[in-house]
Amino acid sequence: MANIRDIAKEAGVGIATVSRYLNDTGYVSDEVKVKIQKVIEELNYKPNALARAIFTKNSKTIGLMVPNISNPFFNQMASVIEEYANEMGYNIFLCNTDDNPEKESKYLDVLQSHRVAGIIVARSKCKEAYSNIDIPVISFESHISDKIITVSSDNYNGGKIAFDHLYQCGCRKMIHIKGPTCFEATEDRSRGFLDAAKDKNLKIDLIEFETDFQVKMLEENIESLNKIGECDGIFVFNDIAAATVIKFLRKKGVRIPEEVQIMGFDNSFICELLHPSLTTINQPIQALGKYTIELLIKLINDEDIEIEDYLMETKLIKRETTLS
Amino acid sequence: MANIRDIAKEAGVGIATVSRYLNDTGYVSDEVKVKIQKVIEELNYKPNALARAIFTKNSKTIGLMVPNISNPFFNQMASVIEEYANEMGYNIFLCNTDDNPEKESKYLDVLQSHRVAGIIVARSKCKEAYSNIDIPVISFESHISDKIITVSSDNYNGGKIAFDHLYQCGCRKMIHIKGPTCFEATEDRSRGFLDAAKDKNLKIDLIEFETDFQVKMLEENIESLNKIGECDGIFVFNDIAAATVIKFLRKKGVRIPEEVQIMGFDNSFICELLHPSLTTINQPIQALGKYTIELLIKLINDEDIEIEDYLMETKLIKRETTLS
Repeated sequence: MANIRDIAKEAGVGIATVSRYLNDTGYVSDEVKVKIQKVIEELNYKPNALARAIFTKNSKTIGLMVPNISNPFFNQMASVIEEYANEMGYNIFLCNTDDNPEKESKYLDVLQSHRVAGIIVARSKCKEAYSNIDIPVISFESHISDKIITVSSDNYNGGKIAFDHLYQCGCRKMIHIKGPTCFEATEDRSRGFLDAAKDKNLKIDLIEFETDFQVKMLEENIESLNKIGECDGIFVFNDIAAATVIKFLRKKGVRIPEEVQIMGFDNSFICELLHPSLTTINQPIQALGKYTIELLIKLINDEDIEIEDYLMETKLIKRETTLS
Repeated sequence: MANIRDIAKEAGVGIATVSRYLNDTGYVSDEVKVKIQKVIEELNYKPNALARAIFTKNSKTIGLMVPNISNPFFNQMASVIEEYANEMGYNIFLCNTDDNPEKESKYLDVLQSHRVAGIIVARSKCKEAYSNIDIPVISFESHISDKIITVSSDNYNGGKIAFDHLYQCGCRKMIHIKGPTCFEATEDRSRGFLDAAKDKNLKIDLIEFETDFQVKMLEENIESLNKIGECDGIFVFNDIAAATVIKFLRKKGVRIPEEVQIMGFDNSFICELLHPSLTTINQPIQALGKYTIELLIKLINDEDIEIEDYLMETKLIKRETTLS
């Protein structure tokens, strides 16, 4: 493959001139520009992005860390971020952290040593590792520090909306299946749901799941549902967990929504495919992804933006697992 | 951040010595090794992976191109490959091609200019672009050329197994919903299914979908199902499309499996969550992902391997959408 030396030789100019042209880092006459570009095309030269990243300090690559792309929500989120990043000329370096602080910390090292232009981290589990980062970072869902912007859905209000809907549908003996305590987003949903219940003087039975998404692991957790006494409404912390709850209840012969009404959270593609289809709370995935990448690119370009938390609106999506 | 110059100065050795130590490219005495390592720890130095990739020609990064990680099959596949790659010390640079030849070709340029160590491409749509690649490539599902190894499930035999199962369950008026003609994997499933039908002298009605996975787009295609005459068995080219077919039939009041039996393909996590749960053909995702990454790393390490196609066994997973 041709390199910068070959280009310079063929065009009859110095290597420094070719470098200035390629990286747009100084004056090159129009005449020489045309000459260099012609040689580049003739030799089918592909600029070495690695070398360029070192010289211009801009690798046009963004590191995206998510817990797991097998989780339908983070998978749709990653797709959206990748799409918008491409439109803005950036490529995505995707890393699965598996909610494992050691893995996340290792990836953070890898991304730094690869000199990525910026990092988006979803649901961070090793916040202290971000204290000395000199690369722009946007956090998704979890608050890392006052120096790092967090973008998130309004999970708290989403939890309130879920309660209000089940209440309006006539539920008075409700259960809330909550996610692992260490997830801020699902904790916020729980707080919203429980606060709204308190306003109506309703007591809510709680069950905690130890995983957010792994069908196999969800099925291990599902055994705890056997403890459930009588109930007429269930709010589950995400759609995929709600899907496993529906499956469990159906096996026990419980009719949904006639006997028990169920709500999920996320509005991922799975809701429409379930039977009955799942009433849920929408997270605006497109808007979240777009906003997150836009903020990061502003940081990369040294634009002046407010370091604060950005909450995006959640809303009810009514389907068949709840009444009227 | 400390650089290699700082390390050399502090350790009282030359830059070339530090470079030999870091990249393991030549002799460094044990005494000097200890000295350099101590300084590295003191200065909290993170080797620049970009620079190292240029000097050692091994970036420890693998480019993985998939059509779309929102497709449950490719998403599970990407997770598996990422996991095994990590175990072997590699990071994954994930790219969505959206089955778009231009996007795939652009990403191929990006991956080359980033000097990735190797590339895995699933369901390539611009095969000609791989003719001049000097980086190891493994193709998943589609045959690119005789110089590039293809790893795939035995889709043809999977199609045969699907027919045999529906036949054994008593179906005699079958429909096959096939994927877009341009997908080799789903074409192979179709051929297998139709060849098995020919052996039994059964005529199969065909419907072609124009997308493999996008719930919205699948729903546009589903209208073509209105053309369906009477049938007692349907083989759908993948699980997620089968899920939309089930939803469509249920809305029309068709009882599954009593009136119509249905089979999907993939055995993705969605099968268990559907009601009734979906009988399908298993693709060995774990084995496929592991084998693909192992082959690629052997190529990267210049090991001698046969350039040929590797087919992995498919098998029936019986669930509730078929009888007996």
